[in-house]
Amino acid sequence: MDEYAIGLDLGGTKILAGLVNGEGQIISQKQLPTSSDDGEKAVIGRVMAAIESVMSGKNINHRRVRGVGIASAGVIDSTKNEVVFASNLGWRNVPIGKLIQEKFNFPARLMNDANASAVAEWMWGAGKGTQNMIYVTVSTGVGAGIICDGRLLSGNDGSAGEFGHISIDWNGPICRCGNRGCLENYTSGIAIENVARTRLASADSSFSGSLLEGCADLTAKQIGVAAMQGDQFSIDILKQAGFYLGIGATSLIHLFNPEVIVFGGGVMSTAPLILQEVEKSVRERCIPGLASQVRIELNQLGTESGVMGAAGLLFSEWEHERKLQIL
Amino acid sequence: MDEYAIGLDLGGTKILAGLVNGEGQIISQKQLPTSSDDGEKAVIGRVMAAIESVMSGKNINHRRVRGVGIASAGVIDSTKNEVVFASNLGWRNVPIGKLIQEKFNFPARLMNDANASAVAEWMWGAGKGTQNMIYVTVSTGVGAGIICDGRLLSGNDGSAGEFGHISIDWNGPICRCGNRGCLENYTSGIAIENVARTRLASADSSFSGSLLEGCADLTAKQIGVAAMQGDQFSIDILKQAGFYLGIGATSLIHLFNPEVIVFGGGVMSTAPLILQEVEKSVRERCIPGLASQVRIELNQLGTESGVMGAAGLLFSEWEHERKLQIL
Repeated sequence: MDEYAIGLDLGGTKILAGLVNGEGQIISQKQLPTSSDDGEKAVIGRVMAAIESVMSGKNINHRRVRGVGIASAGVIDSTKNEVVFASNLGWRNVPIGKLIQEKFNFPARLMNDANASAVAEWMWGAGKGTQNMIYVTVSTGVGAGIICDGRLLSGNDGSAGEFGHISIDWNGPICRCGNRGCLENYTSGIAIENVARTRLASADSSFSGSLLEGCADLTAKQIGVAAMQGDQFSIDILKQAGFYLGIGATSLIHLFNPEVIVFGGGVMSTAPLILQEVEKSVRERCIPGLASQVRIELNQLGTESGVMGAAGLLFSEWEHERKLQIL
Repeated sequence: MDEYAIGLDLGGTKILAGLVNGEGQIISQKQLPTSSDDGEKAVIGRVMAAIESVMSGKNINHRRVRGVGIASAGVIDSTKNEVVFASNLGWRNVPIGKLIQEKFNFPARLMNDANASAVAEWMWGAGKGTQNMIYVTVSTGVGAGIICDGRLLSGNDGSAGEFGHISIDWNGPICRCGNRGCLENYTSGIAIENVARTRLASADSSFSGSLLEGCADLTAKQIGVAAMQGDQFSIDILKQAGFYLGIGATSLIHLFNPEVIVFGGGVMSTAPLILQEVEKSVRERCIPGLASQVRIELNQLGTESGVMGAAGLLFSEWEHERKLQIL
């Protein structure tokens, strides 16, 4: 008999809920605008409405639903099932997991969005079949979801995976987090835009002839598109980001001894050439015995990976316990 | 009824075997010299003799022994139960775990020595009662054993935890591992000795009046002892190592969200002042919400932690499985 779980992706722009089966297929889904300006209560109402909608759409026995997984941006406390702080929602200390649990009488499990995508790629995407996988998201910021020995690494309160805030230069520029030389400041979408803007404004002529010459309000996406069209100025900037990402990835490999590192997120989708540079940098720097065990890959799942993974975590924990019970 | 496990610490100088109970107490033990110059076969013979000795010493039913845990220095493949390379033993591809398993018909589990000490500190030492703990050893080299969610992080083939080879300066000096700016080159016993030697040989007079002035063949231990006696030259060198260790520890906290980081190893035991500098550097750099969750502590167990932890891993896996079976 089929089992299901509900995945909910709670973002600054949209709320996406999906009823997901054990193969990772989304059986029914509901999207609503977040419209966080309406306030916390209104957004919570839309979250509940989205969950109700995917439940009622199909004739499915509620007892076959394992629970609700919620993927949210921001700082999460997964032990308290609470969004501690999410700037894109304007939320502070909202126990959204607890509220869902109370309303629907389902187990609810809150996680950050990088962790949800990691679980999805691990169960049904580029990390399928592995026991040790790291998913790195390169978007506005940089983060990671880490699978160790077939389990999601949560840490003490669910904050593990702050890959963007490991230091690759102890004496580097101060980061907004308080640390120095954080990887994020060399490799995120914002960092890529900053490098491009600085170079375009500089006295040298590295940008001369570039498609981006004279561009104002540059985005990482524009830089990615220009690079795809062969723009050398843009290619150089993205290669540099890939080089630094490879330095961070090398530290991950030395600490975690993974089978695969999967790269996803907005920046990677517009600029896959970054991946080649990551790989090159890893092969140059990584301990050979560890480098030979690890694959560097692009993500396979699309924008629904948050919903899939949030639901997937409920399947995986169940699977894990079941497996040990029948030992 | 009491359960037991055998722990074996296989070092370059000595082989130490112990029969350990579930409270981490060593009931009987046997120490033999490694004398690796006698060749691989002779050393394997002494390993077997040490195990036999601790088995025969007490009137214990073999069926109450969970198995043999082996802690070894060097590169380990825990899936093959093999020492891939250990320079202090002169070993390459020695399947010591498999050989023990065949001879005694016990489950055998090979791990590196940092992992064994991590398990011991987690079960019976400074990490007791936690689910997320990192043990950092600062000795000739620098390494880590990592406990995530109540389980030892092994990685794909047991090589996880190469904390000494994360880069804290992407453009730093080349390390023997091939990477650049590895933490080990700023913080290990060898690094501390190198800094002292370089400063003593330099034209400046930072060493003037130091207890170590004119010392040849300086060791990290001597520097630690001098620092304990108030020698400012030595104190400064150790503080600097602690500062860099704190930078590495901050990256660990951002990735793992642990409850405690426990520092041990030869250098820490002679120079506990390093710990204060680690703590200071972590508090300055770490994301506040993560820093507030983590304790920085000295190890509590002594030189027998390798034997205890190697045995302990067999208890913990059994405990873990048993707990889930009775869910």
